[in-house]
Amino acid sequence: MFLPRKILEEKLRQILVEDTGQGDVTTALIVPADTTVEAEVIAKEAGVIAGMEEAEILSESLGLKAEAFVVDGERAKPKSVLMRILGDARTLLSIERTLLNIVSRMSGIATITRELTEKIRDAGFEARVACTRKVAPGLLYFDKKAVFIGGGDTHRLHLDDMVLIKDNHIAVAGSIDKAVESVKKGVSFTKKVEIEVSKLDDVLDAAEARADIIMLDNFSPEQIVKAVDLLKESRFFGKVLLEASGGITAKSILKFASTGVDIISLGEITDSVKALDVSLKVVKVKRNRRR
Amino acid sequence: MFLPRKILEEKLRQILVEDTGQGDVTTALIVPADTTVEAEVIAKEAGVIAGMEEAEILSESLGLKAEAFVVDGERAKPKSVLMRILGDARTLLSIERTLLNIVSRMSGIATITRELTEKIRDAGFEARVACTRKVAPGLLYFDKKAVFIGGGDTHRLHLDDMVLIKDNHIAVAGSIDKAVESVKKGVSFTKKVEIEVSKLDDVLDAAEARADIIMLDNFSPEQIVKAVDLLKESRFFGKVLLEASGGITAKSILKFASTGVDIISLGEITDSVKALDVSLKVVKVKRNRRR
Amino acid sequence: MFLPRKILEEKLRQILVEDTGQGDVTTALIVPADTTVEAEVIAKEAGVIAGMEEAEILSESLGLKAEAFVVDGERAKPKSVLMRILGDARTLLSIERTLLNIVSRMSGIATITRELTEKIRDAGFEARVACTRKVAPGLLYFDKKAVFIGGGDTHRLHLDDMVLIKDNHIAVAGSIDKAVESVKKGVSFTKKVEIEVSKLDDVLDAAEARADIIMLDNFSPEQIVKAVDLLKESRFFGKVLLEASGGITAKSILKFASTGVDIISLGEITDSVKALDVSLKVVKVKRNRRR
Amino acid sequence: MFLPRKILEEKLRQILVEDTGQGDVTTALIVPADTTVEAEVIAKEAGVIAGMEEAEILSESLGLKAEAFVVDGERAKPKSVLMRILGDARTLLSIERTLLNIVSRMSGIATITRELTEKIRDAGFEARVACTRKVAPGLLYFDKKAVFIGGGDTHRLHLDDMVLIKDNHIAVAGSIDKAVESVKKGVSFTKKVEIEVSKLDDVLDAAEARADIIMLDNFSPEQIVKAVDLLKESRFFGKVLLEASGGITAKSILKFASTGVDIISLGEITDSVKALDVSLKVVKVKRNRRR
Amino acid sequence: MFLPRKILEEKLRQILVEDTGQGDVTTALIVPADTTVEAEVIAKEAGVIAGMEEAEILSESLGLKAEAFVVDGERAKPKSVLMRILGDARTLLSIERTLLNIVSRMSGIATITRELTEKIRDAGFEARVACTRKVAPGLLYFDKKAVFIGGGDTHRLHLDDMVLIKDNHIAVAGSIDKAVESVKKGVSFTKKVEIEVSKLDDVLDAAEARADIIMLDNFSPEQIVKAVDLLKESRFFGKVLLEASGGITAKSILKFASTGVDIISLGEITDSVKALDVSLKVVKVKRNRRR
Amino acid sequence: MFLPRKILEEKLRQILVEDTGQGDVTTALIVPADTTVEAEVIAKEAGVIAGMEEAEILSESLGLKAEAFVVDGERAKPKSVLMRILGDARTLLSIERTLLNIVSRMSGIATITRELTEKIRDAGFEARVACTRKVAPGLLYFDKKAVFIGGGDTHRLHLDDMVLIKDNHIAVAGSIDKAVESVKKGVSFTKKVEIEVSKLDDVLDAAEARADIIMLDNFSPEQIVKAVDLLKESRFFGKVLLEASGGITAKSILKFASTGVDIISLGEITDSVKALDVSLKVVKVKRNRRR
Repeated sequence: MFLPRKILEEKLRQILVEDTGQGDVTTALIVPADTTVEAEVIAKEAGVIAGMEEAEILSESLGLKAEAFVVDGERAKPKSVLMRILGDARTLLSIERTLLNIVSRMSGIATITRELTEKIRDAGFEARVACTRKVAPGLLYFDKKAVFIGGGDTHRLHLDDMVLIKDNHIAVAGSIDKAVESVKKGVSFTKKVEIEVSKLDDVLDAAEARADIIMLDNFSPEQIVKAVDLLKESRFFGKVLLEASGGITAKSILKFASTGVDIISLGEITDSVKALDVSLKVVKVKRNRRR
Repeated sequence: MFLPRKILEEKLRQILVEDTGQGDVTTALIVPADTTVEAEVIAKEAGVIAGMEEAEILSESLGLKAEAFVVDGERAKPKSVLMRILGDARTLLSIERTLLNIVSRMSGIATITRELTEKIRDAGFEARVACTRKVAPGLLYFDKKAVFIGGGDTHRLHLDDMVLIKDNHIAVAGSIDKAVESVKKGVSFTKKVEIEVSKLDDVLDAAEARADIIMLDNFSPEQIVKAVDLLKESRFFGKVLLEASGGITAKSILKFASTGVDIISLGEITDSVKALDVSLKVVKVKRNRRR
Repeated sequence: MFLPRKILEEKLRQILVEDTGQGDVTTALIVPADTTVEAEVIAKEAGVIAGMEEAEILSESLGLKAEAFVVDGERAKPKSVLMRILGDARTLLSIERTLLNIVSRMSGIATITRELTEKIRDAGFEARVACTRKVAPGLLYFDKKAVFIGGGDTHRLHLDDMVLIKDNHIAVAGSIDKAVESVKKGVSFTKKVEIEVSKLDDVLDAAEARADIIMLDNFSPEQIVKAVDLLKESRFFGKVLLEASGGITAKSILKFASTGVDIISLGEITDSVKALDVSLKVVKVKRNRRR
Repeated sequence: MFLPRKILEEKLRQILVEDTGQGDVTTALIVPADTTVEAEVIAKEAGVIAGMEEAEILSESLGLKAEAFVVDGERAKPKSVLMRILGDARTLLSIERTLLNIVSRMSGIATITRELTEKIRDAGFEARVACTRKVAPGLLYFDKKAVFIGGGDTHRLHLDDMVLIKDNHIAVAGSIDKAVESVKKGVSFTKKVEIEVSKLDDVLDAAEARADIIMLDNFSPEQIVKAVDLLKESRFFGKVLLEASGGITAKSILKFASTGVDIISLGEITDSVKALDVSLKVVKVKRNRRR
Repeated sequence: MFLPRKILEEKLRQILVEDTGQGDVTTALIVPADTTVEAEVIAKEAGVIAGMEEAEILSESLGLKAEAFVVDGERAKPKSVLMRILGDARTLLSIERTLLNIVSRMSGIATITRELTEKIRDAGFEARVACTRKVAPGLLYFDKKAVFIGGGDTHRLHLDDMVLIKDNHIAVAGSIDKAVESVKKGVSFTKKVEIEVSKLDDVLDAAEARADIIMLDNFSPEQIVKAVDLLKESRFFGKVLLEASGGITAKSILKFASTGVDIISLGEITDSVKALDVSLKVVKVKRNRRR
Repeated sequence: MFLPRKILEEKLRQILVEDTGQGDVTTALIVPADTTVEAEVIAKEAGVIAGMEEAEILSESLGLKAEAFVVDGERAKPKSVLMRILGDARTLLSIERTLLNIVSRMSGIATITRELTEKIRDAGFEARVACTRKVAPGLLYFDKKAVFIGGGDTHRLHLDDMVLIKDNHIAVAGSIDKAVESVKKGVSFTKKVEIEVSKLDDVLDAAEARADIIMLDNFSPEQIVKAVDLLKESRFFGKVLLEASGGITAKSILKFASTGVDIISLGEITDSVKALDVSLKVVKVKRNRRR
């Protein structure tokens, strides 16, 4: 998920525009045009930091200088300074909230993702943690990128990414077989095919249909164990990945990880984010003569 | 916060575009172009529903028919059907996730907002619950609207809304006095002025400076009580509103409400949203001859 | 009304794009790609200058160097040089007209605004001059900013700014009382409320309804005097502002100012602008070898 | 200047978006969602009406019904009803100002254009009235269209339209000859070529250079007469058009028309517009049960 | 590649806008506003038709009625009528060229794609024909869709689609091994991995590196045969696809197909398109009284 | 056709955005963030180069350094290096395909245009080669510019450019006469008027109607000779240009040129482009410590 800087810049500026409206009235009245300022972005609580690249690009695209002290993906301690920003005071104060909102949301996502992946690693399991497309509306890029920074799998990036045959597709097609048949006829060789199944009986059918990945939807850990066993005993072992999805939480994740499933995906790491508490503090002010 | 439908439509479509990329490959392969479908949006858990207007507009702007069974702001029971959507199957399946993401986030915000406002009412207090500008990046409109639907106060809508003199403004200006002086000279008569104070001593100064609202930043409930008393004894009583902000959570909110403060604002109702669990289920499929 | 430079840049570039179409054919044919040029922006008549910031940003965003000799809000004498611009000849000639159109319109607005505010000050009155939302379509930001630079009050910046209950709202609501009741129930504490009244009898009702501002619509100076007196004798004195609006012109403004009203708003300062005559003259040409 | 309706619609909606911000707070609070309304757009003074097409398209694109009683280009008497608009009350009140701003500006331009063209016709002259590119920034389309509706010539529509060699181009090229030589080499056969001259001596040179039109910049009526005579006596008569431009006002226009010049162009008809006074009045209100 | 109609509509309208500029001057002058028209889109030569959906959506989104007589992917004979369009004459004439440009390009692509795929089928081979990302700039969606309609494989839809390790990536990474190692660490389970190799020796290495597809870059048919054999004899047979790419033309394609390679990709089907000759003819004109 | 660099930059970036989607996954995984690279753009076959300006602007707008070794319009030999690009490796690899697509298409157009113009010159004829509006959808600017670079005439730039009365306009108007009459009434003096005729008899009528250019649609060379003779013998000789259009190919062009026609326009130089084979090769890699 690498975007040239200028493209990311425009995404960020669109977010900013929504907040600025016809312009920051407070700043215009209080902050003289000829003032420069130095400020620090501070993590008020511990977490895995994400959004540093975004904060830097947003700042620099507006003519400010930004120096990050942590790299995306690093842990920060409470009260640690994440970034120093220098430059035009009016500009900095106008973007403060937008910048913090980006860093706090992305860091919140990275933090929970890291927590879950480490929990699984520490317990000796191998399942990968993945997010879903349950993101904040319009924030697909930022939410997915934060998951990646946290060590998770981004799953589909959008609807053109892979073929994922879900319950509603099967309902429309009439059956898994029919859905699969249609897919086989036209799918590009560049795409993987994933099939969602809702009961154990369908697992081998999906494998038979040459799914690259089978999503076990709302399976209990016990059911997943059976699915894994079924697959192991079949000729599809090693060729098909199993993804557990639905109703998995931070609390129950280890039980799912212990089943031997390949991927565990959770909607909540992107749709129920707890923002990391981050703030910005002006530490130096310099009034210039005239610009 | 009323936006003409067409404008809202465009906001929603921009969100959709991010998800569709070069087009939904799964749907294109599986769902024939001549299929219509009927589907239900279902709340899988109880909550205050928001986003019905958005879901309807998104659907209808794409040629689907949508019928909502709950109005924004109503409570829904678990498993209740919120909306029925009919029309072109490919279109519906392509927008499913975007539509659900909007409803689940907005309903999540409305639900917690309602919960907090009722908690305060039930305890016999009068403080209003407000959100801040700590929203998901780019979702200022939707997040604020969900707060309004939940019964909360939207606070500033963007930076041109009112004058809010915060710590960093004061740092740049040199002192509250200087900041206020600048504001008085140039502020439009259409704007209210709010001043953030961080210690009790500054409360009367801010009132003296003719703030319409004083934000008590990170005050403990005890300190707020003192601030309220101070104001009551002064000639500013009835002319200035007090807003408590910073470090307030759902748990501690009643203590803050009991102080007599006018407004309680919390970042977490918009930056740490727990999405309401909402899903979409195809209930009827109709294959047409040819289009 | 402070906008980060990059955001303003994009607004300006959108204006430019409309004029350039598929590209400047004259310049492409006549001006070699390797030519640099120095030009002066000249005020051909006296006035209060506005748009210098815009001209500078537009020029610099396109790679030209711009040096302003007057600051927005300063008076310029006839034939005075406002700005020197250096750089690529093709670029400069392609933006000439757009740049001049911005400066001449904004300066025209600033000039009449200043004239009116000074007329009132010189006559010893205190009323503030405000504009309305009667701007050139799409130029809300630039027109309002020019009013501010001219010393006027920008009034509402858009529809989310404050609550302004006008005749048509009252017609829909049924009565002032009903309109006010609805507003009181839901209005954010961050917004001021203004009520438009069309007859003297409604003034105290509006004050009673806790309007922050009362707009006296199409009142004669005599009627305004009565309204001011009415308010002075009431308990609302000092709590409510009075705005005179409708049918006020540069000619009649002093009569209105003499009434003691707080604000005088005129549509014509933004909807019937007389552009300041400004031109651009190339003063040096330098042909470079090759680029 | 015909634009497909949908394209015009988007231009209009962009203008609207600037005004609505995060949404109309007044309307949202006062006007119930289930209210429909009938309103009239009224000309409060006499004039040539323009902008009816725009008002209709803006209204209808937002789901309102609009019925125009005058066609663009017709004269309206004071107090005449120009258009009736029906539909959702919230939508109508939210677009009122934007719609009126468009109609009042365009009608103002059409009115002065018609006045000038008729003045010339009535005096028995044949010169055509043209506008320039001195428009309100970003309003090239609307301003030019209003001129056309008023009976004037739109002149260049943007910079790719025709070749117009102005003083600054000649300054860069070194001389008229060099400029013309460059143009001849590369200009498309689809373009006319106009050359601006500032003194009588250059008129025949420009004709010699095969200009299709010669712009007499800041010529007095007496000088123009000489230019016309010069041309008449030359072999270019009937092949080249003469345009008088610069310093011409409504007052002096007849003197210029009497010279026999073909076109008279004035910046002021688009850069110093006097808006026609137009208002919108709600005449019926209908509250529906529920939507 | 299914896009909801409204999204496709906007893509199409952006293309139209580029052509209309400030509006169609010919149509505005000649075609009365109250004229409706019926026209036919005609294929002047034989080919596989694509772009019918686009032509229909573009027409209908502008208020015209469109009836297609062929479905995308059908063959048309010379002089056959592809579509009938009815409605406002000005609108139809303004979009004529844009509509034809879309249909003629897409049909040109579909025609050559079909020709190549059938050539291979008719010769009894199984290789699939794929396009590359060598498309007309900005036409990724339309070019790829036309390939799909012609029966070809769309290959990557953009850069986030799959992992394709090309020569330049390997140059930067230092070696295939290093490139592969990096990919393995971080690649999402949803992505296939393709590796480009330029010599026979690298084929098994790439298979070893668990590539899903190996691209044989600029291999001769003889070399490809060897690569196929090598793979057949290895344990990767049936697990890895082989794609021949580079220097393949319509002439030489059968030789490549005969090698047993799985996919044959050609840049020329999208970057060297021969447009199908398509025209639009007005067949009925109806002048209405007044609109 | 000169566009300020920033405007061109945005056009180019929009093209890039379509390709990058949610970001380049291959590059993100393989290329470390701290790597810089030097690469060469190479013409693999001979041709007239166009798109150098675009490639440079695209590269530099993304922070890369670009040095062109050929100027737009120069011929390049096979294997010649056209441009060297230096900078961030991730950025460069992400834009490689987009940059090449632009250069290869524009160069393909410039090459065929040059070939045709020289063929005519070498045969001693004077006719100019022009393109039409048959371009790749959305690429009007780039295709026309490439034609200009190749030495051709760009013809109309869009629909507001000139008046071109085609068969369908005449069909709607009823007759050439009626069409012409309407045009005469309202056409701006800035526009040329071209009339398309389909038979010899109409040529003098069109000249009579004061067309500036007459388009001979689908005339055989023999018919064109007659049209030229007709005109020569009339009083319109020297005042009207003749354009041959329709069914002309590279093969038949000399026959048309020999007729004495002024302009020969061909759709195929822009709608049936053969892309010039251009590639990009990384020649140096530098891994930096840390950014």
